[in-house]
Order: sequence, then C-alpha cells, then structure tokens
Amino acid sequence: MMEAPRRKAATGKAAVELLMRPRAVAVIGVSSKPRSAGRTVLGALQANGFAGDIHLIGRSGGEIDGIPVLASVDELPEGIDLAIFALPAAGVKDALEACARRGVRAVTIFSSGFAEIGNRAEQDELARIAREGGVALLGPNCLGYTNFVDGFAVTFSIARQVPKLQPDRTDPAIAMVSQSGGLMAFARASLEAANLPVAYLASTGNEAGVGLADFIEFFADDPATHLISLYLEEVRDPQAFLAAARYARSKGKPVVMIHPGRSAEAKAAVQSHTGALAGDYDMMRVHLARAGVALVDTLEQWVDVTELLARYPEPPVDGPGIVTFSGGFVAIAHDYCADIGLDLPPLSPDIVADLTPQLPDFMPPRNPLDLGTEVLWKPELTGIGTRGLLDDPAIGSLCICIAQANPRAQLSYGFHFIDALKEHRKPAIFSLPNSELAPEFEAALRENRIIFSRSAERAIQAIGLATFHGRALQRAKRAVMPAPFEGLPVLGKGALPEWQGKTLLRAIGIPVPEGGLATSLDEAKAIAARIGYPVALKAQAGALAHKTEAGGVILNLTNAEALRAGWARLHDNISRAQPGLRLDGVLIETMAPKGLELVVGARRDPQWGPVLLVGLGGIWIEAIGDVRLMPCDLAEADIVEEIGKLRSAKLLGAFRGAPPVDVAAVARTAALIGRLMLTRPEIFEIDINPLFAHARGDGVTAVDALVVTRTDD
Amino acid sequence: MMEAPRRKAATGKAAVELLMRPRAVAVIGVSSKPRSAGRTVLGALQANGFAGDIHLIGRSGGEIDGIPVLASVDELPEGIDLAIFALPAAGVKDALEACARRGVRAVTIFSSGFAEIGNRAEQDELARIAREGGVALLGPNCLGYTNFVDGFAVTFSIARQVPKLQPDRTDPAIAMVSQSGGLMAFARASLEAANLPVAYLASTGNEAGVGLADFIEFFADDPATHLISLYLEEVRDPQAFLAAARYARSKGKPVVMIHPGRSAEAKAAVQSHTGALAGDYDMMRVHLARAGVALVDTLEQWVDVTELLARYPEPPVDGPGIVTFSGGFVAIAHDYCADIGLDLPPLSPDIVADLTPQLPDFMPPRNPLDLGTEVLWKPELTGIGTRGLLDDPAIGSLCICIAQANPRAQLSYGFHFIDALKEHRKPAIFSLPNSELAPEFEAALRENRIIFSRSAERAIQAIGLATFHGRALQRAKRAVMPAPFEGLPVLGKGALPEWQGKTLLRAIGIPVPEGGLATSLDEAKAIAARIGYPVALKAQAGALAHKTEAGGVILNLTNAEALRAGWARLHDNISRAQPGLRLDGVLIETMAPKGLELVVGARRDPQWGPVLLVGLGGIWIEAIGDVRLMPCDLAEADIVEEIGKLRSAKLLGAFRGAPPVDVAAVARTAALIGRLMLTRPEIFEIDINPLFAHARGDGVTAVDALVVTRTDD
Repeated sequence: MMEAPRRKAATGKAAVELLMRPRAVAVIGVSSKPRSAGRTVLGALQANGFAGDIHLIGRSGGEIDGIPVLASVDELPEGIDLAIFALPAAGVKDALEACARRGVRAVTIFSSGFAEIGNRAEQDELARIAREGGVALLGPNCLGYTNFVDGFAVTFSIARQVPKLQPDRTDPAIAMVSQSGGLMAFARASLEAANLPVAYLASTGNEAGVGLADFIEFFADDPATHLISLYLEEVRDPQAFLAAARYARSKGKPVVMIHPGRSAEAKAAVQSHTGALAGDYDMMRVHLARAGVALVDTLEQWVDVTELLARYPEPPVDGPGIVTFSGGFVAIAHDYCADIGLDLPPLSPDIVADLTPQLPDFMPPRNPLDLGTEVLWKPELTGIGTRGLLDDPAIGSLCICIAQANPRAQLSYGFHFIDALKEHRKPAIFSLPNSELAPEFEAALRENRIIFSRSAERAIQAIGLATFHGRALQRAKRAVMPAPFEGLPVLGKGALPEWQGKTLLRAIGIPVPEGGLATSLDEAKAIAARIGYPVALKAQAGALAHKTEAGGVILNLTNAEALRAGWARLHDNISRAQPGLRLDGVLIETMAPKGLELVVGARRDPQWGPVLLVGLGGIWIEAIGDVRLMPCDLAEADIVEEIGKLRSAKLLGAFRGAPPVDVAAVARTAALIGRLMLTRPEIFEIDINPLFAHARGDGVTAVDALVVTRTDD
Repeated sequence: MMEAPRRKAATGKAAVELLMRPRAVAVIGVSSKPRSAGRTVLGALQANGFAGDIHLIGRSGGEIDGIPVLASVDELPEGIDLAIFALPAAGVKDALEACARRGVRAVTIFSSGFAEIGNRAEQDELARIAREGGVALLGPNCLGYTNFVDGFAVTFSIARQVPKLQPDRTDPAIAMVSQSGGLMAFARASLEAANLPVAYLASTGNEAGVGLADFIEFFADDPATHLISLYLEEVRDPQAFLAAARYARSKGKPVVMIHPGRSAEAKAAVQSHTGALAGDYDMMRVHLARAGVALVDTLEQWVDVTELLARYPEPPVDGPGIVTFSGGFVAIAHDYCADIGLDLPPLSPDIVADLTPQLPDFMPPRNPLDLGTEVLWKPELTGIGTRGLLDDPAIGSLCICIAQANPRAQLSYGFHFIDALKEHRKPAIFSLPNSELAPEFEAALRENRIIFSRSAERAIQAIGLATFHGRALQRAKRAVMPAPFEGLPVLGKGALPEWQGKTLLRAIGIPVPEGGLATSLDEAKAIAARIGYPVALKAQAGALAHKTEAGGVILNLTNAEALRAGWARLHDNISRAQPGLRLDGVLIETMAPKGLELVVGARRDPQWGPVLLVGLGGIWIEAIGDVRLMPCDLAEADIVEEIGKLRSAKLLGAFRGAPPVDVAAVARTAALIGRLMLTRPEIFEIDINPLFAHARGDGVTAVDALVVTRTDD
C-alpha cells in the first residue's frame, strides 16, 4: 500500500528541471559489467563530470569507482532529485514504490515492455504510483536525454563526454524532442553541419508522467534555447501540447515539427515502431498551424526550416526575391515556385526606378533578377541587385541561387553578396551547389550568420515553408475568440432532425428555406399558404437517417391539392420503409432557388478540438474530396482565401455563363459555424450539405442540415 | 547571287562530326585585342592544342601568334571543315556567302540578333544561304561547345585548356546539350562531383541549320557517350527530336531532359530568355515518355536521374527496397513515397523465410527494413539485409538510408553494405546525410561505382523517377502501331456535324445511340418507328456550333405526335437562332441509357503529333480539369491503369450504391480513338463528350461526338 504523499509531484517545467539539472542522482540497477545499462548510465554521469552526489543501487554490493553499491532504494537518503532506472520491466514497480517512500522527486525509466507493446495496465499503475507518491516520472521506454548547456547526459547506450554548449556562442541553440533515437542523431548531426548548436535532446518515451508539453514549457523559459524542434509519432495530450507551443511562440521561440502519418502506410509503421495511434493528419495540421507550429513533411524540410527559423525567428509574410546568374534558372525557379505554391512578387515601381540606372540596359530589374555573366566584369552588380530586392517592401526574403562561383569569384562578387546580406534583417539563403568554398568566404558566411545551402531547390523550399508559416502566424493574429450566441434554442442530444438543425442555423443567422414543422395536414397547408407554393415536404425524425432513400422527401408541390397528395404519399413511404417510426412532423419549406452545391461543416476531434470545413458539395465531396479544413476562428477574409484554394475554385467564378458565386456569403456562413463550434462545446459535428451558393449578392441557402451533439452527459 | 552548290550540306551526325572534330578551322572576325571574341576563340583552340590548320580572317592584317591574318574569307583554301564566326550580326551574311563559295563545310555562328529577338527573316536567309551553299550551319546565337573526348573547345568566353576525358576512365560519360549557358556550367560541376565525366557540352543556339536532333544522333553513335542530358527551353523540331531520342534509346543510351514551362510564369521567362515559345507541357510530356525520354522537373532531379541512369541504363520497373537503422525513418519514408506516388513492394514470402532465421527475433523482415542499432554489435546484419532485399524479385532497386555512420562505423558495417551492393546489378543508392567519410570508405564507394547521396529524400526521389521511367519504357514496349481501319466513310473537312462524327465512331466500333439522319418528318417517323420511342431530335449542320443553345436538341419524345410537334419546334428554334441556316437534316436517336459522364478524345499537335485523353465529362472537365493524357498507341491495360489515376477515380468503382463502371469498355473506346488518330492524319481533334459509361458489362455510349479534320488541302 502507498503511504499518503508528502508532497505533489513536480509538473511542467519544474519536473523537467529536476530531470535536466538534478543536484543528486541515484542509478537503480547498476552492475559492474562494463557494457551493462546501469554501468553506462554511471559512466555517462562521470564522463560529463556530474558534480552532485551519485548513489548506486544494485545486487553486487561492494563499490564501483569508489561509490558504494547499496542493496535497496530504501537505503537512499531522503529527497534525491533524480533516480535513473536501469532495470528490467519486472523490477520497475517495486523500485518506483520505494522511490516514492524515500521522497525521490523524479525518475527516468528506460525499461520497455509497457504501453508500446500494448501493456497499458502496468504503465497506468506506474503513473498512479508516481502521482500518488509525489514523483515526477519520465518514461517508461525512454531512450534518455542530454543537457548540453550544463553537460549532463542520461543514457544507457554510450558513456561519453558530450560537447558542452559554449556560453559565448552566438549561434542560436536548438532544443529537440524526438520519439525516434535514430532521427534525433540525424537531426543533431544536420544542425551541427549548419553551425547550430544543440542545447537539449530528449526522448520522452511513453510519457506516463512527464510529457512533451512539460519539455516545451521548460525550453520556452530556458534562456539557452532559441528554437524547439520536434520529431513526433504521437501527440498524447494535444491540448497541453498546443498550449505549450503557443506559450513558446509567445516567448519568441519557434516550434518546428515533423510527424509521420500522412499516409496509411506511415500510420501502420508508426504503430509498429512506438505503438502510436495516429489520428487525422489534415485535422492535426490545422490545429498546429493555428498554434504557430511550423509542421514540415520531410527530413530535409525539418532541418532547413529549423535552421531558417532559428536564425530568423520572425518568418517572412511576403514572397521571396531570387537573385541568379542564369536566365535558364529564372524559368526553372518559376516552375518550382508554381509547384510549391509560392508567389514571387514583382518588384515595386520605386525599386524598379531605383535599380534601372544602376543595371546595364539589357538587364531589366525584375524578380527573379538575372545578373547574367555580367558579374564577371562588374562584381558590384551582385551587391546592387541584392540590396535592391531586399529593400523592396513587397519582398519578404531572399534566395541567392548561383550555379558556379569558383573560390576566386567568391572573393570578388561573393563578398558583395555577403556585404549586402549582412545589412538586412530579412531572411536570406545563399545557395551554391558544387563549387569548393574559399576558406575566407566560408568564414565570412559563418561570421555573418548567412545561411548557406548546397541546393537552390532546398533553399527556395525552406524560404517558401517559412513564408507559409509566417502567413499562418498572421492569420492566427487576425483570428479572435468569438463571443457566444445569445438566445439559442435548447439542443437535443445526438443527431438532431433537420428541422432542429435548421432552427439552430436560422438562430445564428444562416439563411434556410422559409417554412416550418407541421404535425398535421392542416398545419402543413397553413404553412404553405404563408410561405407560398411551390413547397417541399421533408419527413422529420431523429431516427430517420436517410430520409430521401425512405421516400421522405417530396419536392415541388405547386398547390394545396398536390400538397395533400404529397402528404399522404410521404407518410405511406415512411411507414413502408420504417414501419412504426414516429415522425416529429413534416418540414414544409419553400423550394430554394438553385445555386452551386457546396458543403460547409465542422467536426470536433475529442482530443484536438474542432475544425471547420468548406468544400464542393453533393456527391463530389466524396468523389474528389475537394475540401479545405481550417481553424474555427479563422477571419472571414482568410476563409475567402481558403475557399479560393479549392481545386474546383473555377466553379465559384463566372463559369460557363453563370455569374460568380457569393463567396463572401459562404465565408460568412462558415465563420458562423466556426463561432458555434467554439462557443458550444456540446456540438460534435455540423454538416450543411448542400449549401446552395447563389450569385454574388444573393447569398446562400442551407438546404439540408445535420447537427450532432454529444450524448454522454 | 548564289552559285549552284557543289555538294549538299552535311546533316545529322556528319554535320556534328565536322563541328566537333574538324581537321582545319578558320576563325572569322579575329583581332589581336586580348579579350575580344575572336582572340578568345583562337586562344581556346591553342590552349587545347588543336592539331589541324588554323586560318584567321580579320581586318588587322599582319599575324597573330605566327598565323597570318587574311583580309577575306575568299583567301581561304578550299574545303575547310569549320569556320567560326566571331562577327557582329551585320557581317554574318556576307561571310556566310563567302564560306559557301570557298566550300567551307560547316560554320558556327555566335552572333546574336536573329530569331531570339524576333528577327526571323534574316535568320531564315542565313539558313537558305547555308543550305543552298552546302554549308552545315550551327547557330546563330550559339554559345559554343566543347568536345572533351578529343580536347576541342569552340568558345568566345574563356580560352582555357579543357580537361580531356581519359580514355581508360570507366565511369560513364555524359553528353549534354543546354539552351542555357549557366545551367550547362551547373550541370557539369554537379556531374563531376558525382564522378561522372562529361564527353561533350553543346549549346545549339537558334538552330537555323544543325539542330538538337543532329547532336543526339551524333551522341547516340559516339562510343565515348553513355547518356545524353538535355536542358531545353524549346524543341524546335519535335518529330526529329523524338526520332533521335528513340534512336539513342535503341543504342542503349538514356536521354534525360529538363524543360521549364509547366507554369505560365516559366513560359514567359523562357520567352524573354531565348525567345522560345513553349507549347502545352503536359502534351509534350506524353510524347517524351512514349519516346523513352526521362523528363524531370527540378535541377536536383536532372542531376540525380542523370547519375542513376548513367550508372544503370536499364531502369527498374518494380518499386524499391529501403534499408535503414531508424524506425522513425521507416515512417517518414512511407509518407514520402506516398507523396511521390512510389510503391514500396512488400517482401516476397521466400525472402521473408530466408531472412527470418538470419535476423534477430525482434527484427521482422520487411520493406523498409529497419536494422536498428543492432548493427553496432552485429555489423554483418547490414550485408544480410541488403542482400535479402536485392535478391527479392519483387524489388527493383535499393536505397540505403542511414542517418549516421562515423568514419569508424563506415569501416565496419559500411563495408558490409558495399560488399552486398557490388554483387548486384540492381540500381542502388547509398545515402548518408552528414557524417564525414572515411577515405577508405569513400574510395571503396567510388571504386565500386556505388552512387552516394547526401540526402535520403533525393535518393528515394531519384530511384522513384527512374522507376517511373522504367515503367514508361515498358509501356512503350507494349504499345504497337495499329493497323488502319478498313472501309471508313469519307470524311468532310473542318468540324463535322455530329451525325457524321457518329457515323465514323460507329464504323470503328464505338457504340452510339441507334438512329439516323432524317431530312423530312416522314423520314424521321420511319426512323423512330424502326428504333422505337422515346427518341431525341438533334439539328445537324456543320455551321451549327452550339445546337443545344440554339434550341436544336429536343429530348424524350415519346410518340409520333410528340415527334411531329418536336420536329416543328426544332425548325422554328433554328430559324430564329440562325436565320437562313440550311440543316443537313435532323438526327433521330434513341434516348441513351444513363451512365457516368466521361470524356474521351484526342488532339493532334501539328508539331508533336496526337495525344489521347480520358477524363471526367460534363462541366467537370472544365472545372477541375480531371483528365489523363496518354499516347495514342497505349495498350488497353495501360489505359485502364491511367483511368485509375483520375482524381475522381472513386466514381468509377462501386460508388454510393451505383455498380462499378465498365472501365474496360472506356479503355477500348479510347484505344479505338487512338488508333484512328494514328492512322488518319487528317483528323485534328475528336471529342466524345459525354461518353456515357454504363455498369460493368454494359459498355459505353457515345452520346455526342465532335470530329474536326484539317481543311488546308
């Protein structure tokens, strides 16, 4: 039985502080066998000159390197900061309980054999023991971590001295969390190749206790950390993660993340790797963008965007300028930018006027700027062109993409580039694929913190991703938490019948066809007389999922006689299709004027929260999946922009003689749905399908509506 | 006036032979000014030890480096192989005429100021003079070329010795044609970094005479050349180019090409760069794939695919295997492959059975194969895994993607990789992003011709592109030139009225609705009686482009009376919409059973030739452009595969309760249209829109048909 806790377990950054900077450490499960896990843990502490007390617990007795090996955790002094478990899974529970008894404040558990292989019960038990015993628990199945700031490594693989981050180093340092050991090593090597020091590397294991968000919170407040870079296979607590990411961003620290799971194959691989269950990637992407996380798709992007945002924490919003020496490359760059959806802004008239007299007649000032071979004779042109583009307020960043510049050339025109770049704060990358670098040039690039790339495509791609990230941050700034709606009807539970859904839509200001619910033919006639013929009849009941298929929808009834006949037919159909079903009534509506069939809706993920969606409606939504997902608080102007990115956006303009569609009204409808989702957490799902979008100025009509609320309380 | 030519101008590879390996050369427009174009041309000849006679023509008189400067071309001896023009545009014509008089066999013209700035007339005049004078003409606006095999450079930019291709070098050598000087330099530097020597580099300029196809033909037969790599902004003679590319492929020499112009911006840039007018890129892509050209999109792809196909001229057809040490990378690789549409074949059962006892229990044999950190202790696992994947008949190639292998590790498990790779002929790439290379390891990679990459993504992408190229070559092999149709109706000229188009379709075996052309109501009634009611009426006239809009289509007439009324209404409508129009008659047809609306059609580009297209029909073809283009001789099974790649392919399967569509019948229809285009060159365009695709087994119906034939002869 557990004793009553003497204190609460440390959480958040306080927990990570204990893990990263303990004053006293115990290694539990040590042996003198040279390559054993426990011996390696001890060796790593020693190799890095751990200055605090080290306690050892093991079966061997005697001592190791002059430190006595205690037989039991119970022999530890009280209040040790950190115990590191180098134990088989079977021994973990007892040791943890003993740690709780001895007031150990934090533990790191390497042992595997818990949730990652489906053994959740034992892991939950560990979590409970730690929580109740006041112990901050990292793991199980943790691969270790390194604090390069103080020189402290918790690892069972190799005991070696880690290179300490030099306090006078001015390159921005990166803190990294990785759920894969192999990729952690890759990322560190890549960052070091880019002259970016690593401040912390952490594997969080199964996160039974201390989790990803705690690390991010710690890094956000850590003065040595400039950027947080993540390889994740599973975000176990999305809300805590999103809050921590927003906090980091508020502290000026970019968060860059890679997370496999766009494909079904990757999801399966991740599950067999760490037992992670990936959710809907596109939905996650929306929430990450909203929280200011830069999500990337490939390892190269992960490294490149980390480097760019580390050196330029404020990402560009306007498209980049490109300077090159090749007319062919200008064309290649245009295609590449079109492929990745990146705009190359034309130069501002002022800049054109400014550059024209400084450039040769045959060299029109434009973006990309092709300086041709003229730079061989006039190296100063590189500086003139680079400054011109960087000075342009329409341009947010710069890529210099040159193909060849031998070491001698680097010392002439290369230095003009560097001089121009170092005067500006706009993000810039200098790319040169093959040439050997002159040592003076390389040193100058490094000294002036100019990002150097061996690939023009990678340079442009990184700038593009940073720009899209910058735009996402702007959008997030424009978004505001909406106010709740006043006086909404009381909602039922589960899937609401259409008439209730439409009552709700009408109440929040979304146009629905005129009409009302009739429970008798007389009521139906009265409603029809009020709204005018022709009318539509739609059978209403929560238990009637497919009313059209059941014959419960009859359209275009032009007079009272037709209404009477339709009423009878509808009831016949329903009693044949679903005998004994009791209808709420029949919705009597005017026939909506035709429009383009769109869908506007929202889904609430129980963990990540709600997302808004707008897409092509009718059967097309299923057939081609032409849908945009967006955050529920997106500003209307940004919703309009998203709608413009639909593959079938052509249909929204003047198309085949039809007038352009009222996109503003569609966006307004979407914004209202977003507001509803954000302010009414009991709503799980909304589908307006179809939403008829009429000609510009004529608005929209929600022709069908499905609202689903939670049923669990 | 021109004299009668003494001989025909050399063409094809004979012309390029004169340009690349002349026995005697004249430099026209030489001056002793150090940096002048003529002096540089001479300097380049001398720097490379040109062994033949050099003649100089210039205004200075005297001599340069002991060579007398002649005042006029007319002083040249007869039958010089090559004259190099370093002249302003204004002097070109006279010099060319003089060359023709002296029997100069080939000329290279650097001078710009011709078609690239819109001055086509003067360029055409040069072409005529050369042709009639028996002179093979390269240029104008040529940037020069280099023959590294013999050490011969024609250039006006820098006079220096070029590195001669060593005859004993076993790395495959590349011949390159580039329409951009800057990208030529980039590509050469990139290939040299990959240990691939360059055999020839050529700029073809405006191609008034000798063209791209001549160079390709020369390279195809040149024993030093293993692969032909092209940067093109304009293919001026597509048919000659395609034939030359097929010839090169038949000689076992891959052709790799990059050509900007996917985007409107790139097309504009190319036009301002070299005056090139880009055509439809997607259409070009189809023809290139059919001719066995590997078309790539980016510079990295250009270099990487060139390297891969140079070392492995027979590209893989099956998907790749991947070996890695990181479970995280397995997931990343799956996503990346899904993004680029590359399948990772599962291991064959035999290979799984073979590998299982050789791998640790916790390491399941699969693709990608994650060897984990186990290789640190058992380096031989790398060889076992690599051999296993390469031995698998389901796997076409291999990527080794490891993140870290320090120089010491390279000497242990790195060498196991090399040993396994060198035993196999399947294409393979070894990628290692950051680690420093041990010199012995680097030497072993090079010695065993193993492709080394600093990027896992680039490695997988290159393998993927080579695989897609391999599949295109297989498709091309499966395609056969079809036989002409027998007994087709005589076709009119221009846009044929629907009934004629349908008569043609019926004649080649494509189902059209039953019916016939009626010129009187009595004929109409007779036809309707024969085919049965309900019927449709469709007004027919070549000059009636929009029959529906003109009220010329009346559907669903259920009896003779309705037919009579419809007949009158149709004629009324037409005479109001297009007074005085004389109809060919009215098409009386059965109402086609409904089906999925597709479009099947074909277009003939006057230069590139015909392409076939299949897509979603109705307004959707315009709105989302969901269309696949393919060669007209594609095998039916391959057409089925292409149709499956439509974005809306879901609609073809069982969708929302509808049965799956008869895709085989759609493919058969497309194949018939392809055969028609290939065997009837007078047809410009065919559009079956809509083609109703019925349920599987029920075939298709061509509901409307437009056939356009040439009108110019």
